[in-house]
Order: sequence, then structure tokens, then C-alpha cells
Amino acid sequence: MSENKTQAFDIKKAAESKIANVDFENLAFGNIFTDHMLYCDYKDGEWGTPVICPYAPIEMDPSSRVFHYGQAIFEGMKAYKDEQDDIWLFRPDENFIRFNKSATRLAMPEVPEEVFMEGLKQLINIDKEWVRKGKGNSLYLRPFMIATGHGVIAAPSAQYRFMIILSPAKSYYTGEVKVLIAEHFSRAANGGIGAAKAAGNYSAQFYPTRLANQQGYQQVIWTDDATHTKLEEAGTMNVFFRINDTLYTAPTSERILDGVTRKSIIDLAKREGINVEVRSVLVDELLAAAKDGSLKEMFGAGTAAVVNPIVGFSYQDTYYELPKQDKPLSLEIKDKLTNIQYKLAEDTFGWTVKI
Amino acid sequence: MSENKTQAFDIKKAAESKIANVDFENLAFGNIFTDHMLYCDYKDGEWGTPVICPYAPIEMDPSSRVFHYGQAIFEGMKAYKDEQDDIWLFRPDENFIRFNKSATRLAMPEVPEEVFMEGLKQLINIDKEWVRKGKGNSLYLRPFMIATGHGVIAAPSAQYRFMIILSPAKSYYTGEVKVLIAEHFSRAANGGIGAAKAAGNYSAQFYPTRLANQQGYQQVIWTDDATHTKLEEAGTMNVFFRINDTLYTAPTSERILDGVTRKSIIDLAKREGINVEVRSVLVDELLAAAKDGSLKEMFGAGTAAVVNPIVGFSYQDTYYELPKQDKPLSLEIKDKLTNIQYKLAEDTFGWTVKI
Ligand SMILES: Cc1ncc(COP(=O)(O)O)c(C=O)c1O
Ligand SMILES: Cc1ncc(COP(=O)(O)O)c(C=O)c1O
Repeated sequence: MSENKTQAFDIKKAAESKIANVDFENLAFGNIFTDHMLYCDYKDGEWGTPVICPYAPIEMDPSSRVFHYGQAIFEGMKAYKDEQDDIWLFRPDENFIRFNKSATRLAMPEVPEEVFMEGLKQLINIDKEWVRKGKGNSLYLRPFMIATGHGVIAAPSAQYRFMIILSPAKSYYTGEVKVLIAEHFSRAANGGIGAAKAAGNYSAQFYPTRLANQQGYQQVIWTDDATHTKLEEAGTMNVFFRINDTLYTAPTSERILDGVTRKSIIDLAKREGINVEVRSVLVDELLAAAKDGSLKEMFGAGTAAVVNPIVGFSYQDTYYELPKQDKPLSLEIKDKLTNIQYKLAEDTFGWTVKI
Repeated sequence: MSENKTQAFDIKKAAESKIANVDFENLAFGNIFTDHMLYCDYKDGEWGTPVICPYAPIEMDPSSRVFHYGQAIFEGMKAYKDEQDDIWLFRPDENFIRFNKSATRLAMPEVPEEVFMEGLKQLINIDKEWVRKGKGNSLYLRPFMIATGHGVIAAPSAQYRFMIILSPAKSYYTGEVKVLIAEHFSRAANGGIGAAKAAGNYSAQFYPTRLANQQGYQQVIWTDDATHTKLEEAGTMNVFFRINDTLYTAPTSERILDGVTRKSIIDLAKREGINVEVRSVLVDELLAAAKDGSLKEMFGAGTAAVVNPIVGFSYQDTYYELPKQDKPLSLEIKDKLTNIQYKLAEDTFGWTVKI
């Protein structure tokens, strides 16, 4: 992280903390926020002074562009506390770079590194009591940017607000995840915004995901929209397939989010001598592997759940149950990765950054 | 319109009007709003009482779903004042139906007809001084809905706000419109949300449109994302091609917005004995027609500009200028359509609805 530049930030502390009211043992994901938030406004072509202030509603004109034309992007990251009470981020540079890539694709201004990185650091420091020790506990960090310019004309806004809000999180257990392979709906177009962490990508998935939920599937595995033959990713996770002893995951593209967890797993697996192939897995291949027993595991990979094992999938109204593994590779990888994140294992990659 | 039910609305009038400060001769589109707005909140599975109140900023929690996951839809309509000072809407039922189709696709609740239609009527009546007489003048109506539920978890919101805001408009003259045919970028996926008037669809277009602007083209004509061979629509307009004396326009699909202006033009042209074919025009066909001189006209069709003539297009770095027409069909159609809207010609279709 860059050196401390407190002067550049306008800091207004909350009169008292809400932390005593929080039941840290029973946290629903993304539901409770810490005492403070950060915002920084962009106007007349430049960013103003970042402000850290008590978490509170913001005033928005009803004609704000974000409401009408959807210029909104975000990131999802976590802060972890180790046994020495030090707080660590995991590859925050990756999130910063991806955030500004998203900004560019949505015709929004890039956020300066100082505002993003130093903003995170200052804000987390002020609310550091909210980061709980113990594996599984974390502080979920949500930097985001919205178009605040007024006017209902379909053109990029001239004004924006960058914000960071923080939410304490427990380990994310989603139960047994069964997935539905998309045959009709899709989340991203060729030449579209699928590779951006843009708000609009998520709302597009809600209706098809709800239909899948009604059929008993928790998630949809998206396929390419043109042919629906290539397996791409899940709603908020990249996807890995273990066929025999090789791990497969789709290459990133304009349609697929370049996940930090995904790329970390690729590196970690390689270090562990696991065979990893980055290439599109076809639906037909998956079906064949499920039928002949070579499909051993499937799992999602993303910041929230780290690794989310999938127990089976449905395609064309047939459900394929995956075999139970004695020692699932998914959990071994999850363990290795979270040990790095919580400073319980040596970080040979230099991924962790102390606050 | 349904009968007057003022009791069901909570109406708080502004202490004074801002109208005296408005220069109605120099209005930028979508920039100035009338004295009042309408909002209606959805919570616990039901819609509350619609409120009409002075136009003012609204309070939003920073974790509101609209900011993070883009659940936001809208409509664009106009109110016209005739020579008798009566105010008319144009096919508002079409916008109402489309609004709720968009809502369903975005996993948002449908808005009751009473709230949408009676809401428009009541609100316009209160701000009726803002609807100016004279062809070209109108009041642009912007019903929209945003997800107001809190929490950064990628799932549909449980709370929503429906709103209507109103903006006085002059006739929308965009100058000479040159367009770029999309070769790489796209606005919609197969199985995506392109047919919905969803906020996210617009932000996806801003960056490629800005690139086109930098090359001297005002708009992009989108092609299908899988092959980029089919001409689809423009950013906020459907597109018509006149080859010899036939008008062509793409069929609506999951990727294309079912425009009210488009369908009205199809009906109007048919009534006038003009040959209209609803089918995809291929880029190759367009090039051939431009080269052999059979391509006579291209124009966009949408509520804001009604009909927007296109003077030329670029494809693969070659610019094709369209021939000048003595009596462009586009302007004849525009005239016939606006005459119906302003009650200057008989409405044989029953499209106009008095407020
Ligand atoms: C669509 C999508 N894919 C994949 C991921 C995983 O990315 P990361 O590992 O950086 O959290 C996310 C983010 O959570 C996502 O939203
Ligand atoms: C993407 C898109 N296509 C076409 C149109 C034209 O639709 P309408 O004629 O209903 O205004 C619009 C709306 O303005 C639009 O946003």
C-alpha cells in the first residue's frame, strides 16, 4: 500500500459505534455495514477529496444516470485478521486494475490508485474492530462507482461517485449446490460487458436464476450465448471441472469475468503439481465425462465463498449427480488458499498485503 | 384511462412553481424537470400508496441493490397538447405493457395499471402548464423503477420504488446523423435482456458509441452479437431501411426493443400503401444496395426524435453516403405520425388517449 497520507482525506468519525449490536456469530452475507463509509465525487473532469464519514443514506436526484442508464460498477474483496491482529488484503492490486477496466468499458472515469487503495486502508483502519479473527471470518469490502449526473438522456454521465462500504462476513456456506446448465438464457454477449463487474450483468441473471431455483437448482452455469455449447461461468463465480485428475476452467474472454480466485487457484494448483488446462469445456464433453465416470468434481471459485463444491448438474431435464470424493480436490485447494489468506501458511506468491 | 380515483393518491403540492425560470425555447433534452414527481414503494410483496410531491432528491442507502446489481427499468413516452388545450398520450398501453415485461425479465414486481396509468394522468394534470402547445413541443414522461432493498448480495431486491418524472421537450433535432455499423461490440445477447428497457443495456453501449463519436459517427447500428451480419437497431431507436420503394425493419426478438414508434410506422406505412417487410436486413445486402443505388433511405424511429434520418453509414472503414431524396419517405412518415400525435390529423388507429 502507498504511504499514509491522512491529510488528503476528509475524515468525520461517527459519534458512537454500532458494533455492540452486531451478532458476529449470525451474519447474513452483505447485510450489515460498519460504522463508516468512504465517498469521493468526480466532477468537471476531476476527482475531489475522498471523505470518510458515518455510514448513512445518500441523496440522489431522481434523474441520476445510474437509475436510468445503469452506469454502475463494483468490486468484491475481503480483509482478513491474523493471529497477531494484523489485517491483510488478498491481491488488492488485481481488484484495483479490474475496477478501472470495468470503468473504461462503461465509459466511466478511472479511479486514482490513491483513492482506491489508500481509501480502503484508511477506512478499514478506522473500522478495524469489525474485522474478526478466526478462519472463515472476514470483512467484505465493496468499492463501487455510480453515475450521479442528472438528466434522462442516454449518454455517459459527467458526474460520478466512488464509494467503499464494508460488511462483516462469516464463512459463506451455501449448502449443497446443484446447478442448471443454461440452454436458452445467457449473461453476456460477444462484444458486450460480461468481462466487466458491471451492475447490469447481475440483474440480467436474476430471472433465469429464479426459474432455476424453482426447479431446485441454486445456480446457473452460463454457456456462450451464440451456441450454448461452451461452459462459461456461474453468477458470481468462475467454474472448474475436474475430469480424472486434470482441472479445467474456461479462458477469460469478453464474456467472462477474470476472477482473482480463479487465477489464484490456477497458480496454486500448478504449484501443487496438479494438471490445469485453461480451455473451454463443452457441454457434450461434460455429459460424456459424467456418463463414463471421469467427471470427478465441479466447483465454483469466487471471493465470497472462495471455493463452492457443486454436487450435481442438470441439462436438458436430466440430472447428473457427481460422485462423492473421499478427499475432494476442491476442499484441498480451498484450504491451501484460505491458509494463505489468513497467514496460516507461507505466501510463496506474494499475494497478501498488510494494511 | 381509468376513472379518476384521486383519493388513492397522496398529493403534496409544491409551494411555488419553477416554471417562470424555464426558457421553453431553449430546452436541452431531459435536463429540466417539472414541479412534481410521483413515487410508489413496493415492500413486503405489495405496492403502497402512490405519492405525488414536489420534485426533489431521494434518500438511498449506499447498499441499495440498484447501485450494485442494476435492477432498473424505464419507459419513455410523451404528452402532447392540441389547439384546444387538451392533452394527449400516444399508445400509453403499449408502454405500460412493455414496462411490466421489462420488470418480469429483471425479476422485479409488475407495477399495477392503476399506479402507472392513473399516476401519469394525475401527475400530468398537476403539471399541465408544462405541456406547451405547438408541433414539436411535448412533455417527455419518464416512468422508471429501481431496486431499493439493502444488501450487497447478488439476488433480486425485496423492495422497489416506482417513479415518474416529467421533462418539457422541444422537437429533437440531432443534426445530420452518420452511423457506424458495429463489427465487434454489441448491445444484447441471445437469451439476454436486450428486449427489456433495462438501464444496463444503455451503459453497455456508451463506450462503443463514444469510440464511434470520436470517428465522426453519432450513432452505432448494432448487429447480432454472434455473427455481426444482421442489422438490428440503434442505441435508442429501431432502424428502417428503404431499398427501392420497400421499407425494411428487423423483426423484434430477445435482442431488440419492441419500439412503439416502429410498430406505429409499420401500420401507418401499410395504410399509406407502402410496401413494408419485417425481416432482418443483412450487412451484405445493405452494402450491395448502397453500391447499386437501390438504398434510398435509412432512418431511426423512437419516441424522442420520432424519425431520425440517417445520411450515411460506415462499415469496415468505408463510408457510404446515402442519396439525397427530394421527398424523403422518412419525413413524410414523420409528418403523418406527428399529425396524429398532435391531433392535426384524424387518428384512424385509435392510438391517442386523452388525459
Ligand atoms: C460474474 C463473476 N464471475 C466470477 C467472479 C469471481 O471473481 P473473484 O474471484 O475475483 O471474486 C465474480 C465475483 O465475485 C463474479 O461476479
Ligand atoms: C434500445 C431502444 N430501441 C428502440 C427504441 C424506440 O422505442 P419507442 O419507439 O417505443 O420509443 C428505444 C426507446 O426509446 C430504445 O431505447
